[in-house]
Amino acid sequence: MEGSRSARKRKAIVEAAETAFLENGYLGTSMDEIATAAAVSKQTVYKQFSDKEQLFTEIIQATMGRVIAELVGGATLAPTESDDVERNLVALARQLIASIWHPDVLRLRRLVIGEAGRFPHLGEAYFTQGFERGIAAVATSIEQLAAAGRLHVEDPQLAAQHFSGLILWVPLNRAMFTGDDELPADIDHFATAGVRAFLAGYGPPAISEVL
Amino acid sequence: MEGSRSARKRKAIVEAAETAFLENGYLGTSMDEIATAAAVSKQTVYKQFSDKEQLFTEIIQATMGRVIAELVGGATLAPTESDDVERNLVALARQLIASIWHPDVLRLRRLVIGEAGRFPHLGEAYFTQGFERGIAAVATSIEQLAAAGRLHVEDPQLAAQHFSGLILWVPLNRAMFTGDDELPADIDHFATAGVRAFLAGYGPPAISEVL
Repeated sequence: MEGSRSARKRKAIVEAAETAFLENGYLGTSMDEIATAAAVSKQTVYKQFSDKEQLFTEIIQATMGRVIAELVGGATLAPTESDDVERNLVALARQLIASIWHPDVLRLRRLVIGEAGRFPHLGEAYFTQGFERGIAAVATSIEQLAAAGRLHVEDPQLAAQHFSGLILWVPLNRAMFTGDDELPADIDHFATAGVRAFLAGYGPPAISEVL
Repeated sequence: MEGSRSARKRKAIVEAAETAFLENGYLGTSMDEIATAAAVSKQTVYKQFSDKEQLFTEIIQATMGRVIAELVGGATLAPTESDDVERNLVALARQLIASIWHPDVLRLRRLVIGEAGRFPHLGEAYFTQGFERGIAAVATSIEQLAAAGRLHVEDPQLAAQHFSGLILWVPLNRAMFTGDDELPADIDHFATAGVRAFLAGYGPPAISEVL
């Protein structure tokens, strides 16, 4: 009983902190406000989390876990059921986009970048456990398409970096700068145009190379 | 005399504000601190700038202007002197990288992204006047290479977006998240690998297409 009550309080604190940090930033949020929003005492907050930084870290970890789970667990990430490699890659692009385009993910991304000077180790954690694991998940899908002979890829890691950059460079930078969390109306343009450019470089070998 | 003294004070305020904002963020900086650091009275600050937001806007505009001037004015941005298109594009990639990799540019980028929720119009200004003008400058160089028959490009704007994404996606995200302002040791790898992938998609037409 005591354990589940403590877990409930912890959950309330984490949720209140996430809302406050994403809304007001790290400096703009106090432990007092978090305690009030979570309807617990300040002592309870400090019993669970030694300081604001630890609470912030916890929230970043939880959000990264969610993004990666969606990206890795996505039904279309290993789309080997179709012979149409362009269709497979557009599905992969949409999966990648869907894993990122949540207001909480976009806001956390802005928050971690904005606080990189103050908390470089949090940014490093986001980069290795979020960004790079995302690239690795895309690389796995690309490897599967290459193994099926539908792509010509020597370095799946590099190919996944290029794939992600071709698709996300403009729309994700735009979202970061403008603060717009809506899925952009032109997102499919970036997905299909990026996939086409990717296929021009990493498409299946020409018949002449195979023979 | 009075005019130049006023201009000197304005410059001191802008420089003090830039240092403070980039170091401590928007919320972590007060007009009082800026006045003290600029060795002027708070009244002088408010005579020149109606509020902290206007001062912040001014600084963003100045930094964007510097980035764009370097990108557009760069000696290697229109590298039509060489017949080697790969060499031309690597020079363009290095120019693009050099225009961004200054501590003040990287820090301002993080700051504007971190404050996009609070100041979306500043982020929009950065996106249209910084990011998009950078893409337009790259597009101009790509158009020149295409006009010389060294690239096959239907949409120079899209090609410039792809070029930038292929080169900058990993190293610039890494810099944003980790807070590391040094030019990365592996930056040339991203430039050359990105150029090669770009050329695979946008290279000169094959002889068979020309004949």
